[in-house]
Amino acid sequence: MKKTITPQSENFPDWYQDVVREAGLSEPSEVRGCGVIKPYGYKMWELIKAEMARLIEETGAENVYFPIFVPIENLEAEKEHVEGFSPELAIVTHGGGEELKNKLAVRPTSETAMYKTYAKWIQSYRDLPLRLNQWNNVVRWEKRPRAFLRWSEFLWQEGHSVFADKAGAVAEVGQMLDVYEKVYEYLGIPVFKGRKSDMEKFAGADATTTVEIMVKDGKSVQGATSHYLGTNFAKVFNVKYLGEDGEQHLGHQTSWGMSWRSVGAVVMAHGDDNGLRLPPNIAPIQVVIVPIYRDENREEVVAYANKLCESLGKDVRVKVDERDGMSPGFKFNEWEIKGVPVRLEIGGKEMEEDAVTVYRRDTGEKEKVAAADLSSMIPKLFLDIHKNLFDQAKSFADTHVHRIESLDEIKDQVGFFEASWCETTESEKLLKEKFSMVSRVLLRENEDKKPKNDKCFITGEPAKHDWLFAKSY
Amino acid sequence: MKKTITPQSENFPDWYQDVVREAGLSEPSEVRGCGVIKPYGYKMWELIKAEMARLIEETGAENVYFPIFVPIENLEAEKEHVEGFSPELAIVTHGGGEELKNKLAVRPTSETAMYKTYAKWIQSYRDLPLRLNQWNNVVRWEKRPRAFLRWSEFLWQEGHSVFADKAGAVAEVGQMLDVYEKVYEYLGIPVFKGRKSDMEKFAGADATTTVEIMVKDGKSVQGATSHYLGTNFAKVFNVKYLGEDGEQHLGHQTSWGMSWRSVGAVVMAHGDDNGLRLPPNIAPIQVVIVPIYRDENREEVVAYANKLCESLGKDVRVKVDERDGMSPGFKFNEWEIKGVPVRLEIGGKEMEEDAVTVYRRDTGEKEKVAAADLSSMIPKLFLDIHKNLFDQAKSFADTHVHRIESLDEIKDQVGFFEASWCETTESEKLLKEKFSMVSRVLLRENEDKKPKNDKCFITGEPAKHDWLFAKSY
Repeated sequence: MKKTITPQSENFPDWYQDVVREAGLSEPSEVRGCGVIKPYGYKMWELIKAEMARLIEETGAENVYFPIFVPIENLEAEKEHVEGFSPELAIVTHGGGEELKNKLAVRPTSETAMYKTYAKWIQSYRDLPLRLNQWNNVVRWEKRPRAFLRWSEFLWQEGHSVFADKAGAVAEVGQMLDVYEKVYEYLGIPVFKGRKSDMEKFAGADATTTVEIMVKDGKSVQGATSHYLGTNFAKVFNVKYLGEDGEQHLGHQTSWGMSWRSVGAVVMAHGDDNGLRLPPNIAPIQVVIVPIYRDENREEVVAYANKLCESLGKDVRVKVDERDGMSPGFKFNEWEIKGVPVRLEIGGKEMEEDAVTVYRRDTGEKEKVAAADLSSMIPKLFLDIHKNLFDQAKSFADTHVHRIESLDEIKDQVGFFEASWCETTESEKLLKEKFSMVSRVLLRENEDKKPKNDKCFITGEPAKHDWLFAKSY
Repeated sequence: MKKTITPQSENFPDWYQDVVREAGLSEPSEVRGCGVIKPYGYKMWELIKAEMARLIEETGAENVYFPIFVPIENLEAEKEHVEGFSPELAIVTHGGGEELKNKLAVRPTSETAMYKTYAKWIQSYRDLPLRLNQWNNVVRWEKRPRAFLRWSEFLWQEGHSVFADKAGAVAEVGQMLDVYEKVYEYLGIPVFKGRKSDMEKFAGADATTTVEIMVKDGKSVQGATSHYLGTNFAKVFNVKYLGEDGEQHLGHQTSWGMSWRSVGAVVMAHGDDNGLRLPPNIAPIQVVIVPIYRDENREEVVAYANKLCESLGKDVRVKVDERDGMSPGFKFNEWEIKGVPVRLEIGGKEMEEDAVTVYRRDTGEKEKVAAADLSSMIPKLFLDIHKNLFDQAKSFADTHVHRIESLDEIKDQVGFFEASWCETTESEKLLKEKFSMVSRVLLRENEDKKPKNDKCFITGEPAKHDWLFAKSY
């Protein structure tokens, strides 16, 4: 069989591209920088989305929809924001056959699309907190596109809330970051959770918090972010309220978003040289049944396969691969690449014995079990597979954080680097230039701790905290 | 109390605008022609969407996502299509800080965004049928925007399928139109189902079918459409397959879409002078409990209300309106405008009697029932309310179709007009000019029947079928 997937050890980005293509997740579109999401990849996103939606709804946030177009003057109102986003904007200059007097940007994010309207909606402290979320598409022009992780258009949710004071807003930022951590747990992925540096924070925010994921080549994928916007946007869009004290106050705002990057993170965190390995929670097909037959017993074997399929009930996403003209080996390989968590192999022998051979994609283990035990076994197996994927990712992450005291120690080590840092933008720029690496996160648990080394690993100046650094996608 | 809603009889479009605003469904945005969908309106759309998604999935169509941007050259490839849509396009001329060599349109619909890719995916008859759907936003520049019904940006689903032959594609067109009819049944709305005229069909289609809705001022709302595209797009995008006969054939294509216009249709088909009347299926709040108390028994009454709320279980979307500082009358009015199907009134008297007063928004009837019977009563009540709303709409539609034999009979009659027609575009243009009216639909059941009158009601030329004509939104 033609080797269609580059080994991870040879070239991880190539491996990623190969798996995305061979597993049928997506392909480049005609529009440079944008992708086409194919049914299998889109289903993964829908399953991730469903869990995100459930958890966001549980916090009491409500869904809304604001227009995709943002007046340029809105975008320009917040200085840092426009500096950060203007290089990435798509601009609409003509509409309805005429040149527009006021040009429109396609939203890169909706702070400036929403907050003038928020200002109208919020009059008094009784209107707070205001906590809204939207599921939409945004556009950020990408010079170096990468499937799911960096496309010029992507799908996500963006939440935007307003609180009466900083404490409320900061608590919200933490609450939503915890939601994102839970979503990644649902995907079998542990995260590094905490704050971003000044250089890496969201343009216009006072502070950005993040969940970072270590993927299998030791690089980082930013999994989702939750921002404390302070009163920066409130000032320019006049988001004010009449307090209980009878005075006008600025609202304290937050925004938080998670996108279909999460699909890319799943691929990179769990995949192996044979393709995807999907956690059952978000596997479009959780169980595939491959009947193995000769012409003379085809009908019987397929019937047996379908009986087993039905015995699994409606709660399991199961498929019988009845396609003719393909060898079982060919089918195995295909479902392997697609990361289907459980494969059931059924041949004449299994049928005779009223049994089924159960194959686990995550471990590669095979086991023959009685057909009667199958339906009670599957839910437990799913839990076990999920746990194993999580544990493997956790163990990899735990063993690939390297404590360093100087730049020299970075070398070619794979993983994240923990170091005591002075937290200046100059030193981070230097790191970026020399090592293509930036700070990823100041872990929550290190926020209130003294650094292990009192000198910065870059500058030798007094260090403030222990941070994690890494290359990233 | 200030009268905030124009009576329907006075000015129906004003009534609509008032209800959309007062019920908190949406409001105009800063971007001309686009709206902001507020939580209550968005939840209605989400509930409609969930049923649409369920029914579409049931047909076996799979979801995908294609980019929002379409190369202009693609749009220009199909002549009728570009003529139809070019006046409504939004054009992106700059991206990532540079002027684009190849301008991009924001998709007004995705035929031309998808079919070059389809051509790559389809090789042989084994790849057919290909049946894909996407949930997305599209932009069609509107000169006369109207909430939900005509906004420059709207949310919808658009399905696109390819079949080996005309018969398969035509069956698909019918199947999906039936799906849309079922969605409207779910909304308590009967439809007029059939084919569009040449003038009114989708730009680029061989034939368009539609579900039309008669709303309460007798005008029509196009509820959803399903198109047979023939081989028009297949020719220009090279959607070909190798047949079993070893020859290359063009694919026969369809597309079908339903948007958040459906929210507007629900408002216009069921609402009355007091606001919305929502079918329980898509009511964001199905039951509102209003406790009626004095200071001295507030705690008890509210506790009783919450106990009743819990007794309804998780399957009912129920809310206890505990807000202080508002009279019960004020609250009643608010939930009335928002169209909540069932209101439970609970005062000291109800509490003493272990009872509850049940108010139906659709009929205005009140009934006192034992608290113990409530949870078994509610599901039946929902069915009854749904049926009543459907029956009322059906009866209105049935009694407001006027058979006419000449243009003179149109006069100021409210409703649809049934007439025998010659089916020429010239005669339809004349009708549009003089009466602001066009053909809406050739009902399926009239497709194979002779017209009642052998002469056209406009031209006197030989008539072909009996059609329905109406003004529309």
